Amino acid sequence: GASSAAAPCVRAVVQQCMSAQLMVQPSTPEDQPQFVEIQRGIIIYLCFLRGATKAHVEKLAKMIQGIRLSEGDSGKLTSVIDLPGDVMIIPQATLGGTPKGKVMQYHKNIAKDEGMRLYSEFVSIFQKTYERNDKCLSAGTIVRYGTYGNRQVFSCQTNGPFTHLMEI
Amino acid sequence: GASSAAAPCVRAVVQQCMSAQLMVQPSTPEDQPQFVEIQRGIIIYLCFLRGATKAHVEKLAKMIQGIRLSEGDSGKLTSVIDLPGDVMIIPQATLGGTPKGKVMQYHKNIAKDEGMRLYSEFVSIFQKTYERNDKCLSAGTIVRYGTYGNRQVFSCQTNGPFTHLMEI
Repeated sequence: GASSAAAPCVRAVVQQCMSAQLMVQPSTPEDQPQFVEIQRGIIIYLCFLRGATKAHVEKLAKMIQGIRLSEGDSGKLTSVIDLPGDVMIIPQATLGGTPKGKVMQYHKNIAKDEGMRLYSEFVSIFQKTYERNDKCLSAGTIVRYGTYGNRQVFSCQTNGPFTHLMEI
Repeated sequence: GASSAAAPCVRAVVQQCMSAQLMVQPSTPEDQPQFVEIQRGIIIYLCFLRGATKAHVEKLAKMIQGIRLSEGDSGKLTSVIDLPGDVMIIPQATLGGTPKGKVMQYHKNIAKDEGMRLYSEFVSIFQKTYERNDKCLSAGTIVRYGTYGNRQVFSCQTNGPFTHLMEI
């Protein structure tokens, strides 16, 4: 209904990719920066808003796992699990912003500690699914994710990002 | 209000980038594929929904041009025009999708010919602004865009995409 559309609790932007790279540890005087990488699959930008609960997170994770957003080799749409494809999960608090004059405001975003907990939950659901799914196991598909609250230095290569907005 | 939030007419996803490449002409037996490229600036994924008018397009273009979404060299946020930064505009009808069971539905999307007209309008507003702005002219910043209705083969490199959703 209109009220749920007007006030989502979790917002995700989902894109197809052929590969993607995400920095998970900036460089230090001693060490090079560290990156995680995926091959063909999906990128999930994730933002938690006030009122988000574990139930919202479970519902969104299940929705993204099952919905046919990925183009298979034949061109037919399939779920990322059936592809099977890799998954890159990127925390993106900026997705909760609302324009106010010349600036974005983030009043609707959840508190950082709550967001971190829900983010870990979302990542964990994907990891468990991928660890238990025969297709994912035999194809060796992977789940990678960024560190909550940090800058997400990121690159991707797509064959058409096929961008979708998913809200719960 | 709730009704405008529930039924946007134009939806955009805006990201910062350090560079981005978009295919505008697939390869043919005679020719290599053709790409357009931008350097530091913003990527705008754009989708028109039923009810979208030229007035919505103008409002959104002005909003994206003026809002402080881009990180300047000092780390301070500034508008893409004041950065000044390049702009890549990508048609993305999939952003109008609504999940229904295991598939996305696109009933809310505008008809293709209307979408194409509004898309050209949006691109034209950015081109005119960039042609007339002294900062953009002296920095040589550019506006690049994809071909409406085609697959948007796309890559980007970011220093943190800083993803925002903008709806009118």
